[in-house]
Amino acid sequence: MDRVLGIDIGGTSIKVGLFTPEGELLEERKIPTPALTTDDAYAVVTSGITRILIAHDSTPADVIACGLDIPGPVAEDGTVGFLPNIELDPEGLVGAITATFPRATVAFVNDANAAALGEMWAGSARGVQSFVLIALGTGVGAGVVVGGRLIAGAFGAGGEVGHITVERDEPLTCGCGRHGCLEQYASAKGVVRLYLEECEHRGVKPVDVEHATDTLSVFQALSSGDECAAIAIDKMCDYLALAMSQISCIVDPGMYLIGGGVAGGFSTFAPKLRERFQELALSPCRDVKIEAAGLGNQAAMYGCAYEALRLRAEQQ
Amino acid sequence: MDRVLGIDIGGTSIKVGLFTPEGELLEERKIPTPALTTDDAYAVVTSGITRILIAHDSTPADVIACGLDIPGPVAEDGTVGFLPNIELDPEGLVGAITATFPRATVAFVNDANAAALGEMWAGSARGVQSFVLIALGTGVGAGVVVGGRLIAGAFGAGGEVGHITVERDEPLTCGCGRHGCLEQYASAKGVVRLYLEECEHRGVKPVDVEHATDTLSVFQALSSGDECAAIAIDKMCDYLALAMSQISCIVDPGMYLIGGGVAGGFSTFAPKLRERFQELALSPCRDVKIEAAGLGNQAAMYGCAYEALRLRAEQQ
Repeated sequence: MDRVLGIDIGGTSIKVGLFTPEGELLEERKIPTPALTTDDAYAVVTSGITRILIAHDSTPADVIACGLDIPGPVAEDGTVGFLPNIELDPEGLVGAITATFPRATVAFVNDANAAALGEMWAGSARGVQSFVLIALGTGVGAGVVVGGRLIAGAFGAGGEVGHITVERDEPLTCGCGRHGCLEQYASAKGVVRLYLEECEHRGVKPVDVEHATDTLSVFQALSSGDECAAIAIDKMCDYLALAMSQISCIVDPGMYLIGGGVAGGFSTFAPKLRERFQELALSPCRDVKIEAAGLGNQAAMYGCAYEALRLRAEQQ
Repeated sequence: MDRVLGIDIGGTSIKVGLFTPEGELLEERKIPTPALTTDDAYAVVTSGITRILIAHDSTPADVIACGLDIPGPVAEDGTVGFLPNIELDPEGLVGAITATFPRATVAFVNDANAAALGEMWAGSARGVQSFVLIALGTGVGAGVVVGGRLIAGAFGAGGEVGHITVERDEPLTCGCGRHGCLEQYASAKGVVRLYLEECEHRGVKPVDVEHATDTLSVFQALSSGDECAAIAIDKMCDYLALAMSQISCIVDPGMYLIGGGVAGGFSTFAPKLRERFQELALSPCRDVKIEAAGLGNQAAMYGCAYEALRLRAEQQ
């Protein structure tokens, strides 16, 4: 029976999804791994996956496609770019996977791009040919889908919407070395920072924030009527809507999906986001749908499996 | 012998290009027309084209594809949107064309999009699968090409890069009703305005500017060492580079082409534009090629002919 793998690669573990070619998730399992740069580490991956297959009456020879989702740029030809946040030898890992799963077509996919493909395969964008999934998490990324295909970009920077400049006068430096990127305001860290800054500005004691990316506490504060939280979320929505209005002037998608950890507060901030977008967008695009992504943190796992399957179909 | 037509539709005339299916331009002719909303006006178009065909030993039955380039939005399904600058009944015109050239596949294409397709078919982007042509003219538009296909947009606003917001504090209102659009600084009118404003600001007498879109005089002033012209062109390059840096974060093209009337000064402003783009762009995209478009004001005529041919191939 043909099987498909979707593998989310993290810094200290991988998350493996075992799928049917029709997109049914049979099992999801997290496997702790050392840095993916040695044969021993690759063996942890392949033997862990093999055990999952056996538990589902399948064998390594049943795997026809294997998608690998990574937190970094992947060029149109599948080449992996610089990965600042994880240790990974892409060629070594692909070699080990190919040796264990000889029938598998292997594809690397950028994480935000993978999430978009996942939503198209089995989530909120099923059947939608043109949409942008904006993932608000530790960083801010996006998958830009036009005509059913992801825009990877000539230099692997397609969908790097977290680095749209929304505030040229920002004194703080973004991780990319530039100033005023969307990511500085709409990532989890950005939202928490905007909140704490507003509290300091007003001389108000903030609610307990457990860590630099604890947006949950900020959204809870907002629900309890915290004015500083309201201003922080308004700013976040303003900058996000501005960036989306720029995206609409360029690719004009038929739908926006908001995903990532910050989207846990989507129902709270969606009315403000939609209102600001209506104000800022070019008139023909004003009524575009803005919805929550549907697959949560499984989206990328679905999406990289889908992409490997698509690549296989293309190669055949 | 199969023939292809590319028709640039203007307010008071059309420009017809007669092509071979391989993209060779056999003849280009301008035909003055009344507003394209009556049978009489359509007859001026079809009889004018028929005369051109006869002069090239061809007949109306030889026309296999006819592209119509219009200054307004065209949705992905070919539907023509609101056209503020010309009087045109799209259905009436298509009916007349189809009656006269019964074999022809007819396609409407937005003018900036058409110019991009033309550059891909026979100009500076030949063989390039991913590029953005930015047309700096009366307005500022673009054709965004990814994977060899134009991004028309879900609401026909794909490539409306003239309405990327580059200056939120701009007091003047753009034609679209918003503030601080790229078009307000990088269109012909924008460049002339920036120059005159700088002269006024400094209390300097400007060079003679013949009309509101006379960028030629501004570029000539720049060549003669006019400091106000230098500052105006620097501002234009800054805003254009900023908008391009946003485009690169979203679709990450492999090449930018600059076209339209303002591109007559391309060799003068290209070094500054490239320098500002290097400073403003996300690092992976910094070295993208920025070149002048190659087909000048013939690009759109080539491009709409190409699109009609492509549509024909798709339908067969």
